Amino acid sequence: MRIGLDVFGGDFAPLASVKGAILAFSSLAADDKLVLIGDAEQIKKICKDEGFDAGNFEIVHTTECIGMGEHPAKAYASKPNSSISLGVHMLKKHEIDGFASAGSTGAMMVGAMHTINSVPGVIRPAIMASIPRISGNPVVLLDVGINPDTRPDILYQYGLLGSIYGECIFNYKNPKVGLLNIGEEEEKGNLAAKAAYQAMNGTKEYNFIGNVEATEMFDEKADVIVADGFVGNVMLKQAEAFYTLVRRRKITDEFFERFNFEHFGGTPVLGINQPLIIGHGRSNEIPIKNMILHTRDVVKTKICEKIKEAFSKD
Amino acid sequence: MRIGLDVFGGDFAPLASVKGAILAFSSLAADDKLVLIGDAEQIKKICKDEGFDAGNFEIVHTTECIGMGEHPAKAYASKPNSSISLGVHMLKKHEIDGFASAGSTGAMMVGAMHTINSVPGVIRPAIMASIPRISGNPVVLLDVGINPDTRPDILYQYGLLGSIYGECIFNYKNPKVGLLNIGEEEEKGNLAAKAAYQAMNGTKEYNFIGNVEATEMFDEKADVIVADGFVGNVMLKQAEAFYTLVRRRKITDEFFERFNFEHFGGTPVLGINQPLIIGHGRSNEIPIKNMILHTRDVVKTKICEKIKEAFSKD
Repeated sequence: MRIGLDVFGGDFAPLASVKGAILAFSSLAADDKLVLIGDAEQIKKICKDEGFDAGNFEIVHTTECIGMGEHPAKAYASKPNSSISLGVHMLKKHEIDGFASAGSTGAMMVGAMHTINSVPGVIRPAIMASIPRISGNPVVLLDVGINPDTRPDILYQYGLLGSIYGECIFNYKNPKVGLLNIGEEEEKGNLAAKAAYQAMNGTKEYNFIGNVEATEMFDEKADVIVADGFVGNVMLKQAEAFYTLVRRRKITDEFFERFNFEHFGGTPVLGINQPLIIGHGRSNEIPIKNMILHTRDVVKTKICEKIKEAFSKD
Repeated sequence: MRIGLDVFGGDFAPLASVKGAILAFSSLAADDKLVLIGDAEQIKKICKDEGFDAGNFEIVHTTECIGMGEHPAKAYASKPNSSISLGVHMLKKHEIDGFASAGSTGAMMVGAMHTINSVPGVIRPAIMASIPRISGNPVVLLDVGINPDTRPDILYQYGLLGSIYGECIFNYKNPKVGLLNIGEEEEKGNLAAKAAYQAMNGTKEYNFIGNVEATEMFDEKADVIVADGFVGNVMLKQAEAFYTLVRRRKITDEFFERFNFEHFGGTPVLGINQPLIIGHGRSNEIPIKNMILHTRDVVKTKICEKIKEAFSKD
């Protein structure tokens, strides 16, 4: 397996990227190859400083990168040698099996939607977050931000995308899919949630268990929670805010520590043809390492193939 | 001032209602009167058991009540002698100055919308929650559940309703009103949020400070956060879920204890003509006491009059 990493991605690049790659290296199999896309001189220098043999990596040299302030679509198109454009196109040409970046989310999304493209049948791809639960098994929340206005048929599909992700990454058998709502009864909610409930109820494509309220999000009720991108994003950010409060109150607790975003390895864009993983901009070497290993898992478990298969049945 | 209390309201009624009224009694002024609407025999019995003189209360006797499982509109109309119907109509006739119940939220809302009625100019009334902040001053979040599908002009009005509430109850001078969104920039969000931003931006009616993300909800950025009823309800319930986690992890912390719903004294229906306060169904005597004192504050600070005045300027 060949995993591409955008060395320019993230606030602490390139140092955090290369250090994260070094950390990930020891967890990879002998035939896994990390392909670092960035400035070869910088990469070799950091490896040397870290006492690590840069020959363990394959390096694709470029000095061009897309800044966080740039217009994503314009920068992606006008900078074909930027690390993100290069990585996405290498993925497209199957020169790598997965590509990860903690850089411009907008540019990564442009690459996802216009170079890699949606799986036929998927109306709108989604991004997800793993939310810790007391049991130890996280709940898969999606969408957490791509689509702030979401139609019921899109919510319906999120159930299938989340279900496949839960099976592949967390090994959940027939994961329980819940629809985020403001009441348990099917007549509750906004117009989109009410219509989505009707679409999901009785589906044979996944295990729909009904509405889930935010009070139940950390329970065992659902393994996958479907929400529109506005609400999902708010929930993820509120969880971050609560973790910050826990830290500010100087509470040390093993469970709450799992809300530290450093443990998240980014999110694949679910519903596109190939594994493209978006990391957190604030990533230091630990989340970069986790993002690389997450990319490995997404490739290994063939999520994209399983999504294609599921949607070709429709 | 005369405050009406539904003695049948809540899961632990009538015991919790009467005990809560006894607790509230000592905090009320000499000329404040608590009017208990419920079974006179039961009320007197509980007072006697508690060693409290029932003569301190005024009792409006009824044995009829609206159950939590009943259809709110049908029950409200067909049971004119139920404690909720009686209380709302006493309020309407100015026989009491405020009415509070931890009973059927649906029936209370029917009373609010069809007997007390909206203030002219208010498109849709809202309910709120006080969310604790590190600083000690809570943030006012609204709407937390009446209107799950909310138009931009309604979101605009929530800013004014929340601002008046913040001024009256928390004594905030020119409270900072933020629009809940998934990004700081004005072009972020779903269709309703984007249009609401444009309506709120530059308003002279209140102090709009722009978009607020959920990561910032516990900060000092905004004193009032405006959200649609779906998202607001999810945020409130997620805060409850997090408090439950804190308890389950056996963490004792003075700040997190403020997330205990027992400290909340219910919510007035903001934007109707008179003070009608809805409490939490699970209320024991402490939240009942707080709901009574909150009703007192809502009456005393003349929130309804201030809302009428603000909307008559339009």
